[in-house]
Amino acid sequence: MDYQRIFAGAIASLKDEARYRVFTELGRHAGAFPKATNFSRTGEPHVTVWCSNDYLGMGQNADVMAAMREAVARYGAGAGGTRNISGNNHPLCRLEAELADLHGKEAGLVFTSGFVSNEAAISTIAQLLPDCLILSDALNHASMIAGIKHSACEKQIFRHNDVDHLRSLLKAQPRERAKLIVFESVYSMDGDIAPIADFCDLADEFGAMTYLDEVHAVGLYGPRGGGIADREGLMDRIDVIEGTLAKAFGIMGGYIAANQDICDAVRSYAPGFIFTTALPPAIAAGALTSVRHLKQSNAERERHQERAATLKRMLADAGLPVMHTPTHIVPVMVGDAALCKQASDMLLDDYRIYIQPINFPTVPRGGERLRITPSPLHSDAMMQHLVASLQEVWGRLGLRAAA
Amino acid sequence: MDYQRIFAGAIASLKDEARYRVFTELGRHAGAFPKATNFSRTGEPHVTVWCSNDYLGMGQNADVMAAMREAVARYGAGAGGTRNISGNNHPLCRLEAELADLHGKEAGLVFTSGFVSNEAAISTIAQLLPDCLILSDALNHASMIAGIKHSACEKQIFRHNDVDHLRSLLKAQPRERAKLIVFESVYSMDGDIAPIADFCDLADEFGAMTYLDEVHAVGLYGPRGGGIADREGLMDRIDVIEGTLAKAFGIMGGYIAANQDICDAVRSYAPGFIFTTALPPAIAAGALTSVRHLKQSNAERERHQERAATLKRMLADAGLPVMHTPTHIVPVMVGDAALCKQASDMLLDDYRIYIQPINFPTVPRGGERLRITPSPLHSDAMMQHLVASLQEVWGRLGLRAAA
Ligand SMILES: Cc1ncc(COP(=O)(O)O)c(C=O)c1O
Ligand SMILES: Cc1ncc(COP(=O)(O)O)c(C=O)c1O
Repeated sequence: MDYQRIFAGAIASLKDEARYRVFTELGRHAGAFPKATNFSRTGEPHVTVWCSNDYLGMGQNADVMAAMREAVARYGAGAGGTRNISGNNHPLCRLEAELADLHGKEAGLVFTSGFVSNEAAISTIAQLLPDCLILSDALNHASMIAGIKHSACEKQIFRHNDVDHLRSLLKAQPRERAKLIVFESVYSMDGDIAPIADFCDLADEFGAMTYLDEVHAVGLYGPRGGGIADREGLMDRIDVIEGTLAKAFGIMGGYIAANQDICDAVRSYAPGFIFTTALPPAIAAGALTSVRHLKQSNAERERHQERAATLKRMLADAGLPVMHTPTHIVPVMVGDAALCKQASDMLLDDYRIYIQPINFPTVPRGGERLRITPSPLHSDAMMQHLVASLQEVWGRLGLRAAA
Repeated sequence: MDYQRIFAGAIASLKDEARYRVFTELGRHAGAFPKATNFSRTGEPHVTVWCSNDYLGMGQNADVMAAMREAVARYGAGAGGTRNISGNNHPLCRLEAELADLHGKEAGLVFTSGFVSNEAAISTIAQLLPDCLILSDALNHASMIAGIKHSACEKQIFRHNDVDHLRSLLKAQPRERAKLIVFESVYSMDGDIAPIADFCDLADEFGAMTYLDEVHAVGLYGPRGGGIADREGLMDRIDVIEGTLAKAFGIMGGYIAANQDICDAVRSYAPGFIFTTALPPAIAAGALTSVRHLKQSNAERERHQERAATLKRMLADAGLPVMHTPTHIVPVMVGDAALCKQASDMLLDDYRIYIQPINFPTVPRGGERLRITPSPLHSDAMMQHLVASLQEVWGRLGLRAAA
């Protein structure tokens, strides 16, 4: 067996399809976000990052950074063990209480990442329910798909955000069968929003549980940053709300918020929660500070929405093919993997603008795009430079303009 | 469907079996490890932690803590994105190069945890190989089992550390079939060591790949802390070495070290690597400092081994049922879940000694134990107090003495 040839072949086939990923090595400048040093290119010190999911720039919030530094000084570098075996640190427990409060739930449970929280919680919840049927939105994130797959339960996919389709699937099942509806609030690539209230109505009507990924909404929507369900007053109708500490909250880690028994069951049965070292106290302390800050401050959210709306308008005015999303996500369509990569390279090399190309399998083939995430820290001048640069790149590569 | 009853029932059954886990909430004291505040018990400020996997106390190493604090100040709190989309930070890239060097491999690839590294790497490697057969040690860790399961490949379990059994399984297969031998160096619950050289011989003879989890050995064994394979001069015979940054290195994160194509294939195909936010620069910078320190300092390793040997001798002299391991892990056997929990509670309540009980499924039923992990920071006086306290607890609960 020529193992080497197989791994080399797997890589070659990605290159053939122009979807081999080249990572850009960055050093972000705390205090000067969205500026960063581009270490992939020596002598090219500064770039403007336009594709970060640190949506609000909380990664450079002074209180968050101070909380992390203080926690390192007080508690040391790591947790020192799994949650069960000496790793259950004080800041992490306080963070879980804070997240429960954020979502109006009895309990919170923190995982090492949002990916792990979805994988562990979905698979464990579905496995505990006898003969559970999982109903999953067609565009659900890879981490949710991992959780569904690893549950080994039956699953049915409903068309993206399609209430009628979900209804027809539910209707075909006996009412007494356990059912778990799994979906996101904000879909991160198209920036659209699920009909949460309608899905909750269906859950009530057909006796299903609801599991909502608010990864791209927590911190960003709702009067206290509880997400879209917070904004729409629906948190109490969702059984399990899942979120991340790595995007709007600016650090790392994931969580669920739910009632006591659900959290306790996941805590007690999920291998991905049990058999891994707990998050370091410094991460938990930083996240706690970030969550608390965004609970009582709307300034970041308001400016964020204004920046996104402004950029969308500017892109549209310039004739660029921007998708009109109801959220902070600003996709500009390219529709070809090789051209998307070329556009991205050109922006980085010639305009010091960093926007990673988004290709298959993150989006469907033909849906290749530049996904732009304006933050409260992106100025008018930066936006003008971005739009002008995109226009030039569009011209140089002969890319499609807006329809 | 009464969902609530099901989750409540799942928890009740754990309580019935006396294996419901109660976490102890700790605040470790940087600068005074292994001392910690026990937040689970108000007014009980100090405990001595005897079950941490921060084996060398690197979590309070001054240089490691300084590196983390400086990285927060320079780069901010989080990475800001996945590895592919703006999260590929400079300290993380340097860390990967350092880990490649540590293990004498072409490349390193860092994951958010050791659990994720095993899950993602094993499942991806096995899936890329056509019709791969996974040969797995019977005592492999939950994270490796997750990787094996999620690969959906055929697997065969060989008896723990049993060269003859593995040989007979390999012999029954066509030489041309892809095979992956998956095992650990140090098994964390029994503290025994795999016959690595023999397994490598078998791999050569039968044309198999080798995947070695060195999670409980990296930093701790070998002239530069590369693990047991480093100590035994075998690193170049292992295809994939997996490790953690959360135990001897004191922080969090996991990794593999392997040749360029294997790392690149895992980087390019593993959902658990691709679709999650990268480790924060501060974590990577701290880990980098820790790895570098332990590459050139043997003092921690020497003192660690001396402490473990001394404690084992003291426990044996006191007639306590300590397992004689060839490593730093010191299991004291109880053999009953309820008694194990009671002994642990008594130690914490009456002696301010924190040792979490280890029950099923972490160990087999009947193998319940107190797993003690002496570090370079545990003094003679602490050991005397520990042994005397264990003797009292053994007497009070009527536990089995050494055979
Ligand atoms: C919808 C969704 N869920 C979960 C995750 C995973 O979150 P994390 O980055 O914290 O692992 C992501 C992105 O990374 C996501 O887009
Ligand atoms: C053998 C083994 N592999 C992997 C892991 C997971 O490592 P981490 O804690 O970094 O997730 C552990 C323990 O947690 C382990 O004991």
